[in-house]
Parts: sequence; C-alpha cells; structure tokens
Amino acid sequence: MLEDKNEKPVSELEELGEFGLIDHLTENIKLQNKSSKRGVGDDAAVIEYENKQTVVSTDLLVEGIHFDLLYMPMKHLGYKAVAVNLSDIYAMNAAPKQITVSLAVSNRMSVEALEELYEGILLACNIYGVDLVGGDTTSSTSGLIISITAIGEGEKEKLVYRDGAKENDLICVSGDLGGAFMGLQLLEREKQIFKENAQIQPDFSGYDYVLERQLKPEPRKDVIDMFEEIGVTPTSMIDVSDGLSSDLIHICRQSEVGCTIYENKIPLDFTTVNAAEEMKLDPTVCALNGGEDYELMFTISLDDYEKIKDQKRVAVIGHITSDKGSYQFVSKSEQVQELSAQGWDAVLKKK
Amino acid sequence: MLEDKNEKPVSELEELGEFGLIDHLTENIKLQNKSSKRGVGDDAAVIEYENKQTVVSTDLLVEGIHFDLLYMPMKHLGYKAVAVNLSDIYAMNAAPKQITVSLAVSNRMSVEALEELYEGILLACNIYGVDLVGGDTTSSTSGLIISITAIGEGEKEKLVYRDGAKENDLICVSGDLGGAFMGLQLLEREKQIFKENAQIQPDFSGYDYVLERQLKPEPRKDVIDMFEEIGVTPTSMIDVSDGLSSDLIHICRQSEVGCTIYENKIPLDFTTVNAAEEMKLDPTVCALNGGEDYELMFTISLDDYEKIKDQKRVAVIGHITSDKGSYQFVSKSEQVQELSAQGWDAVLKKK
Repeated sequence: MLEDKNEKPVSELEELGEFGLIDHLTENIKLQNKSSKRGVGDDAAVIEYENKQTVVSTDLLVEGIHFDLLYMPMKHLGYKAVAVNLSDIYAMNAAPKQITVSLAVSNRMSVEALEELYEGILLACNIYGVDLVGGDTTSSTSGLIISITAIGEGEKEKLVYRDGAKENDLICVSGDLGGAFMGLQLLEREKQIFKENAQIQPDFSGYDYVLERQLKPEPRKDVIDMFEEIGVTPTSMIDVSDGLSSDLIHICRQSEVGCTIYENKIPLDFTTVNAAEEMKLDPTVCALNGGEDYELMFTISLDDYEKIKDQKRVAVIGHITSDKGSYQFVSKSEQVQELSAQGWDAVLKKK
Repeated sequence: MLEDKNEKPVSELEELGEFGLIDHLTENIKLQNKSSKRGVGDDAAVIEYENKQTVVSTDLLVEGIHFDLLYMPMKHLGYKAVAVNLSDIYAMNAAPKQITVSLAVSNRMSVEALEELYEGILLACNIYGVDLVGGDTTSSTSGLIISITAIGEGEKEKLVYRDGAKENDLICVSGDLGGAFMGLQLLEREKQIFKENAQIQPDFSGYDYVLERQLKPEPRKDVIDMFEEIGVTPTSMIDVSDGLSSDLIHICRQSEVGCTIYENKIPLDFTTVNAAEEMKLDPTVCALNGGEDYELMFTISLDDYEKIKDQKRVAVIGHITSDKGSYQFVSKSEQVQELSAQGWDAVLKKK
C-alpha cells in the first residue's frame, strides 16, 4: 500500500535532525480554536477554556503491538492514532480541542513516510476541529512509537463518567460492532498469503466496510452532538475499544451494578457477518470481544427512552440491574450466559 | 544498582494483564490538588483551573536513547521522567498540577521493577505537589518507553515564553551547568570497564554531585517561587535540556535578537570541573553543549537587575543584543567566538 513511495526521493532523517524534523512537520500548522493560546515551539502549549472543565486522555501506540506497517498505510495510521484519542474525550461527553503528538522514529524511516503520517494526523485534526499544539520527536532503537494526548473541554454538569450507571438504566451502543476485528482478521489472512507467495494480490472485494473500520475508525462526535440536540445526558459512557463485553464490565464494576444484554439486539453490519462466516467465526463473539470499534456505549435513564428510541445511530441492547457483579448475556436461543472480559486472543483460541 | 532484586519473588506481568497492572500500580494514588477532579480509571482525567490558563508539555523517553537500564535504577528513572516534564512547565513560569504516564513495557520486565519505576514517579509527584491522573500501559516489542504529559496552571500575565527577550535584557541561568553531562560520561566510562571485566567495582568516589545531576535532576520550582517572591517576571525563559548554547539560540531565534555571553560568568560546580579535567574535556564546552541540566535560563529587563543580583541561585551570564542571528561567546582570554547549537556528540568528537 506504500508502493508509490519509490518514485519520490527519500530524504534522510539524519539530514534534518530533531529540530529540523519538528519544524518541517509542523510548519504549516495554524491554530483554529480560540482556546489554543500557544502551540508548537515553546516549552509547553498554552490553553484557556473559560468556565469549562479540562479533560485529558492519552494513548501509546507501538509498532508490532498496535499496528503493522505492512498493511497500515502511514496516513491511515496517523488518522487512526488521533481518532482513538478523540474517542476517549467524546466518551466523557466532552469536546476535544487540542492534541500533542510524540513520536519515536527509527532512522530507517524516510521523511516522506513521516510526512504521510502527519498528513493523516492533521486530516483528523481538521475534520474534528482540533489543534496540534505540541509534542516531542525522538529516535527509536526499534519500531515506530506514537504517543498522543488529547485535551478537551466539557461542562461540569454534562461530563459523563463510567461510574454513573443505575438500576433500570438502558444500555445503548452507537453504530455497529465487530467490524474492526473482522477487518483485522482479513488483513492478517492476506498477510499470511502474501508471506507465502508475494505474487498473489490481496483479495478484499466486498469487504471495504470492515477494512475501513479497522484502518480508519471515526470517533463518534455525531453522537455527542446528538445528545446535545435531543437533550439527553447519559448516566455513564465508555468508548468500545477493548470489546463490548470488557467495556460493559468496566461500566458495571465502576458503577457497582450488574447488567443484562441481548444477543439479538447487538448491532452488526452485514459485511461483518459475511466476513465472520467466511472465516468461521461467530459474529456475535467478534462483536463482544473484538474491540477497536470506537463506538460509544452508554447508559441512559429510562425516562430518556422516548428521546432516543428513534435515533437510527443508536441501539438499545439491554439494561442495568441491581445485581452487582452479575453480567448476563441472553443468547438468541434465550440461554443466559455470563459475560466475561476476554480480549481478541480468546476469540481466536475459541475458533 | 538493582542487586537486591533477586531476593524478592518476581511476578510475571502476564499474570496481572494490562488492567491488573494499571490497577496494581495506581491503587494507592490519592489526588491532592483541588484542580484534579478525576484521576485514573475513566476514559479521561478531568481538571479544573479557575481563571487560569492551562499549560501542557509532553516528553517521550526511549530505552537505549534516553536512558540505559544498566546504570539507571528504575526508581531514579521514574523520578527523572517526571522531573524533566515538570521542568518544561516551570520554564513557562507556571505550576505543574497533574501528569499522565504512559508506559510500553517488554514482558521481560518484572512487576517489581515497574513498582520501583512507579515509586520514583510518585515520589516526584509528591515532592512537587503533582497528581498522577491518567495514562496508558501497553506491551513493547523491545525496550521500555515512557511518555509523560505534564499539565499545569499559570496566570495569563505571568506566563513566560521563548520569544520575549529584548535588546539589553540580561541573560541569567540558575544553578550550575555541565554536571549532568559529566555524570553521564563517568557512568559510560564505568560501563565500558564493567563490560571488559565484571569483577571491577565502579569507582565514583568524589563524584556524587555530578552523578546525581545525571540520575536525579531536580526541576527548579524554587526559582519560580523566587520570581513570585521578589516580584520579577522574566521576559523569556527555557529550561536547559539540550545545552546552554542550543537553548540560548532557541530563545534568540524566537525573540529575533542576538546575544553575548561570557565564559567567566558561566556557573560551574567544582565537581564538574574536576570530572571534566580527569576526562580531558573542557568544562566550559561541557556546560555549553552537555545538556540535561534542567536549570532555567531566562532573560530579565535591566530594570530588574537590582532585584536579582543578590540571589545566590542565579548567575547573570550575558545580555541580549539587537544583532539578530549573532550569538557571541566571549572566552576567558577575551576572544569572541560564535556559539553554535551542537549537541553532546559534537562535544565528544572534539575531545
């Protein structure tokens, strides 16, 4: 996916040096938000949110653990790195306004590759109205490491935490689940085939949707805007990064409640179902444990049901119970199972 | 320096898992600052500075680039990682209040080693009155990576940037310079000897001061407190992380001015001078280019000279000129040379 790279002259990172590199990558940045008082180029960035609370979230992405440059184009990687951080800010019902980006870069990497990474970073900033205000660039003895901190503002009364879910609250989720995981499985499968025979071109026809879920996730700003519009403040919220099961259990543990969710309510895209079937995986298991969907899972008071029931981007998948520590999953055949916080590895072992 | 490690049972990171590890390392954290509304355990931390501006700085430390675990004890590493970030906030004339800490950890590392790292992190937090409010912990395919973001508050009228130096302003520096670099040189020398013969014990007698400068630097909160006390707001400020030369040139470039500094005014500790002489290095060159001293370099208006002249922790080393792009260094023999922004490598090549 980086095939056109050879046509361009590849500058050496060493020629630029650390300061040259930062200057080069950040020279075109213009601050857009009134709250961004100072950006890149001083000891620290300066921000001012008048009468708002400040929300801060940070993520570290490591090559070989969180991404594989064999199938992750640099521009997508930059975009995704920002997207997943903004997702955490939205999950507080807050608005991201600034990010800092720190990179550790091996000197095997070309300046052009880093330019593409920054293109993706700045594209996401642009789309979500966020300023890049600072960071750090250093060498790496091994792979690429990206550390992003997102900073945003929220109204004290409207911030939503993980610990506010109450008995009888409805459990809701935006969009659909399991797609990002199926995208990853397809990419991993084609990587194996490619390793065995580099002549075979990958075949992703019909799977654009799940690939995009994996390679270019979008944080759900629109859902936060919807809350404002319909006048709903969730009682608790989290973004689905580890998987529905694991993230729902986070909410229940921190809220000291239990839950019941229904398999037939879990939103799945047909592409996800097709891909899962082709790869002999249970799509529900993928949705429960796959992770990386960056959808928002939240609970609302029963009183708000009328306001949310016609919102197409949201599905009600169950409800909160007073049975602390009991996390129930009701299958299509109406069997009741216990949810557990397993990760991706567990899904694949079950296969 | 980690020799007592073998006496304790070494738990495996895998047993704890990611969430277990975060819980384990952060379970005893108590938020101290009124502005820390929510800490570890949600999608994001929440902060509220009433009527103040928010200052944010971030650093990425990579094993093999920024630190060597062979001679850097984990507790010191944790302390230093926090210290260098706080230093950036102080360099804005602001007060750090929160940090986030992200770690990428190889599974070769023991839980005990990470506990020591956190001990150092929390010790620095405690001493400087900062809350650890968030972070991310993940695996690493290679060495240890530490990414810290420091967040602080400052009064709009008192924040100090790099671009405010004016003609005739005095150039000042706190403490003394070159020590951290000499500490590193001693550690590197003993590492070479140790590699050749593991039986030989390192000999650091008389050099405690420079070792401490390298292994456990202290950010200059006291200098910021002094500004408040004596009623001085510097016109520009930076912390000396890259070396006096390089950091002074940052200030001059951003302020669009020139400078003249005097060799005989540069503050050196006698331990630094002794160590440099023993290693056949010029102590002034070490002070100019060594870096990592985390002292504050700042400029003040001539009018403030009376207020600062008796402050023992500050030395006036030169002045700002209108000669943009001209960075003059006057040697002890009164020769005028041009300063250049060289790093540590250049110092060692000159040797």
